[in-house]
Amino acid sequence: MAKQNIYDNEAFFAEYMKLREREVNANNLFELPTLFSLLPDLEGKRILDLGCGTGERCIDYIKRGASQVTGVDISEKMLAVARSENSHPNITYLEMPMEDIGAIDGEFDVVISSLAFHYVEDFQGVVKNVYRLLCDGGVLLFSQEHPLTTCYSGAGDRWTRDENGKKLHANIADYCIEGRKDSTWFVEGVQRYHRMFSTIVNTLADTGLKILKMEEPYPTVELVQKYPEYYDLYHKPDFLFVKALK
Amino acid sequence: MAKQNIYDNEAFFAEYMKLREREVNANNLFELPTLFSLLPDLEGKRILDLGCGTGERCIDYIKRGASQVTGVDISEKMLAVARSENSHPNITYLEMPMEDIGAIDGEFDVVISSLAFHYVEDFQGVVKNVYRLLCDGGVLLFSQEHPLTTCYSGAGDRWTRDENGKKLHANIADYCIEGRKDSTWFVEGVQRYHRMFSTIVNTLADTGLKILKMEEPYPTVELVQKYPEYYDLYHKPDFLFVKALK
Repeated sequence: MAKQNIYDNEAFFAEYMKLREREVNANNLFELPTLFSLLPDLEGKRILDLGCGTGERCIDYIKRGASQVTGVDISEKMLAVARSENSHPNITYLEMPMEDIGAIDGEFDVVISSLAFHYVEDFQGVVKNVYRLLCDGGVLLFSQEHPLTTCYSGAGDRWTRDENGKKLHANIADYCIEGRKDSTWFVEGVQRYHRMFSTIVNTLADTGLKILKMEEPYPTVELVQKYPEYYDLYHKPDFLFVKALK
Repeated sequence: MAKQNIYDNEAFFAEYMKLREREVNANNLFELPTLFSLLPDLEGKRILDLGCGTGERCIDYIKRGASQVTGVDISEKMLAVARSENSHPNITYLEMPMEDIGAIDGEFDVVISSLAFHYVEDFQGVVKNVYRLLCDGGVLLFSQEHPLTTCYSGAGDRWTRDENGKKLHANIADYCIEGRKDSTWFVEGVQRYHRMFSTIVNTLADTGLKILKMEEPYPTVELVQKYPEYYDLYHKPDFLFVKALK
């Protein structure tokens, strides 16, 4: 089974780091505030961060009182940044694809994954391992690209625009056809896996996780006044969040 | 709060009855088989059917062993058909908007609603009453128009077509703007209420219901070969099903 390591692609990595340095981006405006708003109390908790990347969130979790954070990422480059910029005595970084967390022993109170599950083909396998690694009463909180975003493949236009380039509506095709849908994001051939809402919900429910909350963040009226380019999130959200209980 | 009774509109009722008489329609091909596949064992169970219409399903539930079925519908015309064509000693038909089921006493093992919740403005109020009426371990099973369908309002074209009229993609706009979105279905101004996936899931979870299963039915390859016009369901499902446990 393919385990994509696009973040170790030189061109991708360079562009990704530039994007993250921009003060105003969809991550800072929507993904991060929603993630923080859904976090359970982390005081004294053992955290597993799947797809931890450069480890900024791992440090955040320590600041929020986590007793121990384990950050897992497939990318050597991302973890090199994490180890140099976001190291801490109570953070352990593990270089492995999250499909391999069956190899991890131990127990966690909270498993968090930010914008990484859509890179994984075997979602069910990851969820089963998460279930095994969570203590009773433990929480899984993840964000991923929204199913109305992952359903796209190829280079077809995702939007219908007016003559001034304003986005009128999202062009949604083949939402019910799941599986790998490569996209171009900095580089060609970024592998993403599309799953319908029902598949995501059923995978969690079938594994024994109880869904506590789902979020599809979109901008406030004030934010759209400041950054009109984000109005398109009303048409098609970028992110899906799910919080579930073992 | 508006409680729509479109099924008592003469023109709507006549057209709706004609549609239902067609042997091949989306209800028979997708809605009904999915509903039946998700039904729990009904043997000896007390059933509440919200938006029972002409009562065909109430009779089905009796045939599957239900000890008692209560069918609720806002439409006098639909219930007149139900009482004349689908009466049974163990079926009680109640003419009331489902927003008023707070007036019902008693306890039910299974609450079922087929394609009616999207007509209801106060979904949370209905779900709270369902929760109250369900016994512990009771099941809510409902279908509704899919959120990618309810998000449409007005007479704008829902599809982008090629020069032969073939549907290329669904035009999705304002998915994140919830609330009443009137549509034209037989008659103008059919009131439907759009809710995002997250709102549906959170309303159930916040009320204390555990989601067991979600389905977004689409055709099999064989069915599309026989009825190519249903390929568009791959682009945008018509129906959403949710099964939840108290």
